[in-house]
Amino acid sequence: MGNCCDRAASFFGPQKNTNVRVGLPAVCFVWQIAMVVLFGVFIRYDEESDTHWVEFRRENNITSDIENDFYFRYPSFQDVHVMIFVGFGFLMTFLKRYSYGGVGFNFLIAAFGLQWALLMQGWFHSLNPETGKITIGVESLINADFCCAGSLIAFGALLGKVSPVQTLVVALFGVTLFAVEEYIILDLLHCRDAGGSMVIHCFGGYYGLAISWVLYRPNLHLSKRFHGAVYHSDLFAMIGTLYLWMYWPSFNSAITDHGDGQHRTAINTYLALASSVLTTVAISSMSKKGGKLDMVHIQNATLAGGVAMGTAAEFMIQPYGALIVGFCVGIISTFGYLFVTPFLEKYLKLQDTCGVHNLHAVPGMLGGFIGAITAAAATEAVYATVFITFCKNTFDFEGEFENRTPGTQGGFQAAGTCVSIAFGLVGGVCVGFILRFPIWADPGDDNCFDDEVYWELPEDEEIVPPVLEYNNHMIHKHQEM
Amino acid sequence: MGNCCDRAASFFGPQKNTNVRVGLPAVCFVWQIAMVVLFGVFIRYDEESDTHWVEFRRENNITSDIENDFYFRYPSFQDVHVMIFVGFGFLMTFLKRYSYGGVGFNFLIAAFGLQWALLMQGWFHSLNPETGKITIGVESLINADFCCAGSLIAFGALLGKVSPVQTLVVALFGVTLFAVEEYIILDLLHCRDAGGSMVIHCFGGYYGLAISWVLYRPNLHLSKRFHGAVYHSDLFAMIGTLYLWMYWPSFNSAITDHGDGQHRTAINTYLALASSVLTTVAISSMSKKGGKLDMVHIQNATLAGGVAMGTAAEFMIQPYGALIVGFCVGIISTFGYLFVTPFLEKYLKLQDTCGVHNLHAVPGMLGGFIGAITAAAATEAVYATVFITFCKNTFDFEGEFENRTPGTQGGFQAAGTCVSIAFGLVGGVCVGFILRFPIWADPGDDNCFDDEVYWELPEDEEIVPPVLEYNNHMIHKHQEM
Amino acid sequence: MGNCCDRAASFFGPQKNTNVRVGLPAVCFVWQIAMVVLFGVFIRYDEESDTHWVEFRRENNITSDIENDFYFRYPSFQDVHVMIFVGFGFLMTFLKRYSYGGVGFNFLIAAFGLQWALLMQGWFHSLNPETGKITIGVESLINADFCCAGSLIAFGALLGKVSPVQTLVVALFGVTLFAVEEYIILDLLHCRDAGGSMVIHCFGGYYGLAISWVLYRPNLHLSKRFHGAVYHSDLFAMIGTLYLWMYWPSFNSAITDHGDGQHRTAINTYLALASSVLTTVAISSMSKKGGKLDMVHIQNATLAGGVAMGTAAEFMIQPYGALIVGFCVGIISTFGYLFVTPFLEKYLKLQDTCGVHNLHAVPGMLGGFIGAITAAAATEAVYATVFITFCKNTFDFEGEFENRTPGTQGGFQAAGTCVSIAFGLVGGVCVGFILRFPIWADPGDDNCFDDEVYWELPEDEEIVPPVLEYNNHMIHKHQEM
Repeated sequence: MGNCCDRAASFFGPQKNTNVRVGLPAVCFVWQIAMVVLFGVFIRYDEESDTHWVEFRRENNITSDIENDFYFRYPSFQDVHVMIFVGFGFLMTFLKRYSYGGVGFNFLIAAFGLQWALLMQGWFHSLNPETGKITIGVESLINADFCCAGSLIAFGALLGKVSPVQTLVVALFGVTLFAVEEYIILDLLHCRDAGGSMVIHCFGGYYGLAISWVLYRPNLHLSKRFHGAVYHSDLFAMIGTLYLWMYWPSFNSAITDHGDGQHRTAINTYLALASSVLTTVAISSMSKKGGKLDMVHIQNATLAGGVAMGTAAEFMIQPYGALIVGFCVGIISTFGYLFVTPFLEKYLKLQDTCGVHNLHAVPGMLGGFIGAITAAAATEAVYATVFITFCKNTFDFEGEFENRTPGTQGGFQAAGTCVSIAFGLVGGVCVGFILRFPIWADPGDDNCFDDEVYWELPEDEEIVPPVLEYNNHMIHKHQEM
Repeated sequence: MGNCCDRAASFFGPQKNTNVRVGLPAVCFVWQIAMVVLFGVFIRYDEESDTHWVEFRRENNITSDIENDFYFRYPSFQDVHVMIFVGFGFLMTFLKRYSYGGVGFNFLIAAFGLQWALLMQGWFHSLNPETGKITIGVESLINADFCCAGSLIAFGALLGKVSPVQTLVVALFGVTLFAVEEYIILDLLHCRDAGGSMVIHCFGGYYGLAISWVLYRPNLHLSKRFHGAVYHSDLFAMIGTLYLWMYWPSFNSAITDHGDGQHRTAINTYLALASSVLTTVAISSMSKKGGKLDMVHIQNATLAGGVAMGTAAEFMIQPYGALIVGFCVGIISTFGYLFVTPFLEKYLKLQDTCGVHNLHAVPGMLGGFIGAITAAAATEAVYATVFITFCKNTFDFEGEFENRTPGTQGGFQAAGTCVSIAFGLVGGVCVGFILRFPIWADPGDDNCFDDEVYWELPEDEEIVPPVLEYNNHMIHKHQEM
Repeated sequence: MGNCCDRAASFFGPQKNTNVRVGLPAVCFVWQIAMVVLFGVFIRYDEESDTHWVEFRRENNITSDIENDFYFRYPSFQDVHVMIFVGFGFLMTFLKRYSYGGVGFNFLIAAFGLQWALLMQGWFHSLNPETGKITIGVESLINADFCCAGSLIAFGALLGKVSPVQTLVVALFGVTLFAVEEYIILDLLHCRDAGGSMVIHCFGGYYGLAISWVLYRPNLHLSKRFHGAVYHSDLFAMIGTLYLWMYWPSFNSAITDHGDGQHRTAINTYLALASSVLTTVAISSMSKKGGKLDMVHIQNATLAGGVAMGTAAEFMIQPYGALIVGFCVGIISTFGYLFVTPFLEKYLKLQDTCGVHNLHAVPGMLGGFIGAITAAAATEAVYATVFITFCKNTFDFEGEFENRTPGTQGGFQAAGTCVSIAFGLVGGVCVGFILRFPIWADPGDDNCFDDEVYWELPEDEEIVPPVLEYNNHMIHKHQEM
């Protein structure tokens, strides 16, 4: 197969250099060593994961080890972890010859990103000014996984068109930008965004789209032969879809308030997701001759309900509210795959491999605004006797934010959504220009969506029936005799 | 490929109309809108997922948020959720050309079914007569998933022979019937059935078999070319099998009593499953030339131990009792695949694609009777000092049921099993006749087990080696020059 | 294909007898019946899974059901369970024609092994001398799964070269040896080894290598045609890799102390794993022309961080310490795949199908020594005010071990590592000789890595395009007319 690629060069002229033998190891080593040093300087266990928990329990009159935050959060953490690595990873295996790249680079980005995220989020959120240390616990791990999600979403828009070194650059800047916008949105604007409609999906989607726009490849059609699925690659992608779908209630509820907060968030997300499956199927079937379903829609738009509930799920949106949200975004997202992605490619020169525009950018933005409306609509009528407690606990109207009302909170939530879009677009354009330097060993236009470029592939003997191969072997042996 | 199917028509005469472009979207929209309206009227958060949890905690002297039912049940819920979507879904991907249908329609049925189940089960079990509202929490979500399982089991018997519209009809009536029989068995007869041997597996199995019997296709052999596995489709099915097998302890224990109830149920299920693996392998190997194992048995009969422990797992059946149950049903289930399924097809005109007779119907029925025996055998000797507490807590011998003894309870359990069989058979026959109306766009006899009918399939270039394709591309380019 | 195999016999001389039709069922039945009897005699529920929990709670002033060990351990148990069956199982599907054997025999070994492990570990650790009974709870289930892991690791070295009967023999002796070495290391030497670097990985690795060494096949090259991956088999293996990787924090923390113990262990493992991904990618890329990545490395060496943290993760190794460990073992393990495995095969006559030497044996051994160093380095400086509590709780310096210091503990930890190596090597050689008796129906040298030998395979029509098959069918029909 190598041979055949060499021959290809004679037709296309000198082939692009895609050798990452120096660049990739160098980046991996430099960044991993930097992580070791920075962790050594900054990161320690928090009081619930340190041996001082014994003292901490005594001092705080905590009656049982089960009240360690580990037991509130760890099952959700593991579900989120599965979403990041298996969910996002396998969702990106749908291309016929880029499944290794999909699941493999996803693995690489996330493994690096979560380390950098622990540092970045730590500096912004939990740096102890006295000791100069960041302390981490299970909630930090969840937040680090969330932070990676932003960059993985961006990777979805770039899938098959970038080198592994570029994906690491996307993650480095993605995590950095994420931590800053998150600090602005959650701390300065004091928004609530448990499941990250704004900070994760909206930001990540627009970040990826902006990068992809800058990296526009006018001759991408030269890789057309690899730009599609085969039967089994679509089934691998369904593994990703289903894990994202099933665990999304854990994603949205992972860091909400203990007790009713996590409970309600999970219920709302579960319902919104169920609802978006039915409308996705409906629109997908309506759009095709004979009413045939399109796997692309089933794999992606069914998840839009989870994205759009990321902010509002912890509020009292009520079960029917969740169903309505899922209903609408299922339709919007499927329409996106049918009409918007082709439009973007044709008129805006924007190539979006996985359609993150329809699954993350738009549903995330809508989720931000739905959250704003739900927050603003929080009235004493809905919350009755516990209205003040709710405002205090869920909205954290304390300290400098004591005078906020749900109405003003709604305004700030909407502002937060705009901030996330702005960070995604501006940050993405900047990173896109960095990625255009001719040093990253990205694939040529005729080489995209092809694992051959960055992976040692097995000789694919699936295409040579084992029986024949065996016979050949026998004949060969016979001749030798 | 479309071409070739068009040609096929000339041999077989006018092809059956399988166009679902109007029907499927219509059903999805109507039903989803109905769900939104009904949820709006009826469904609210319960006191543990509502913001009133704060008050509820105070009033009930609950010392910690960790005692919210969420933390008792959510990890089990997620395991059950995975079983429903990945377990059942991927188990049904074993056919070479119906993997999309297997995992995709499973997804659709479950996403609709769980919404309808929340309503149906709510009306029967938790409708507050004063407020007219149903309140839901994490236990409701588990029960809704359970309720879907019944219809998914039925779908297993119909796999490849029905249209997506028909699957939704199966789910609509399946969930309805389930809620009624569950109400009769659990509330009126006051049976215990934590893991649903009776209400889920026995009912679901016979429901599917009865539908399949009514829908008998004498010319199904015309689809013989698609009625089998290929190497990789069997591996996808193993994903389903293993997730069902691993998480079955969570399935059976998900709604048992807090504390020792969940703990004991999980242990018993774990042991029964382990035991049925060994006897399945033994019988499978004995039945084939050279002792070769059959993937159909490994994929299915290994799970029979979990089905058969659905009722008895929460009782004190003892570890060796669990092993014996697994031992026996492993053998029975494998014999079913070897002899009973072919017998049913030949003499009873019953086509059972996944063999739900052997995995659900019979082991479920046996599980019901094993539960009856175990309940009847609950004596003071086994439970010693806690006998009365056990009767009160696990059997709920309170109120109108105060005078029951374990012996009478056993009788009621056996009666419950019969009720579930009756509901399955009668309900299934009725639904079967509904599905015979010629309006559902089901596939023709020569078109079964073929994703081509309801899915946009990728051109399967796996069969054209990428190298050749690439060369063709090159040649083509060359000629153009 | 059967035909073709018959023909093969004429070239190779009489083919080896691989008929397991008597042996496999016999072994399964005998062993499963033995399990039923032994469980009947010995095994009962412990006080937290028995109905006596009600009394136990009252007597011990336990305020809530949530303090039942089930809620501390069950989510971790399920993660470990997934690692054993899906993780190990799918990791072994990478061969193009041994995927059924990889996932299927893994399933069989583990299902038998966990029953035998409950007995063996029970006799050594929790046999009540008064009642003569072993009591089991969720922690026993985790330990039983751990115990199986040792044999599954050994199976990795033997993959494709042994019969299913032999795998059961490997498991029988593997579990037995495991229970003995574990008793010596954890009870007599009083070592700590939460995640089993020593007792699981180091033992299991050397056990498998020793067996494989005894079973050396000089003519294994005759099976060369099957000794490799295809595109999709490598993707199936990635499912295994990712589940092992994601759930490894649960594996290491599953049986550590409640509270900070589990919390800290999970964090350390998470970090070590992330770090080893980057160094694995770096070395893999450096080693190949063009910097292409090798799936074998990504599938395996990325996990080395988890193995190497098995002992030290519960100590205060600090986050940067965990990163350093992952950094180093990622490099060592990848080098192992590049250089050591070929070296072992060429010069030591040791065929190691999955490379367990590089993923389990060496990282496990290193993990043992890292644990020893970390334990010895536990000083008052690090633990400050809770030093004594830590020594008491984590090291269990009580009773006869009251006078130990962290320094001597470190020495004992190192000694434990040596014990596990010795048990693996000596036990493996003995078991290897047992497996050389000509009664086990193992495959011939030309038949290794081939599912055809022990499995009924579907006729692989993937290689006949469905379209052609359909046309043939049509032509055939036409001719009949």
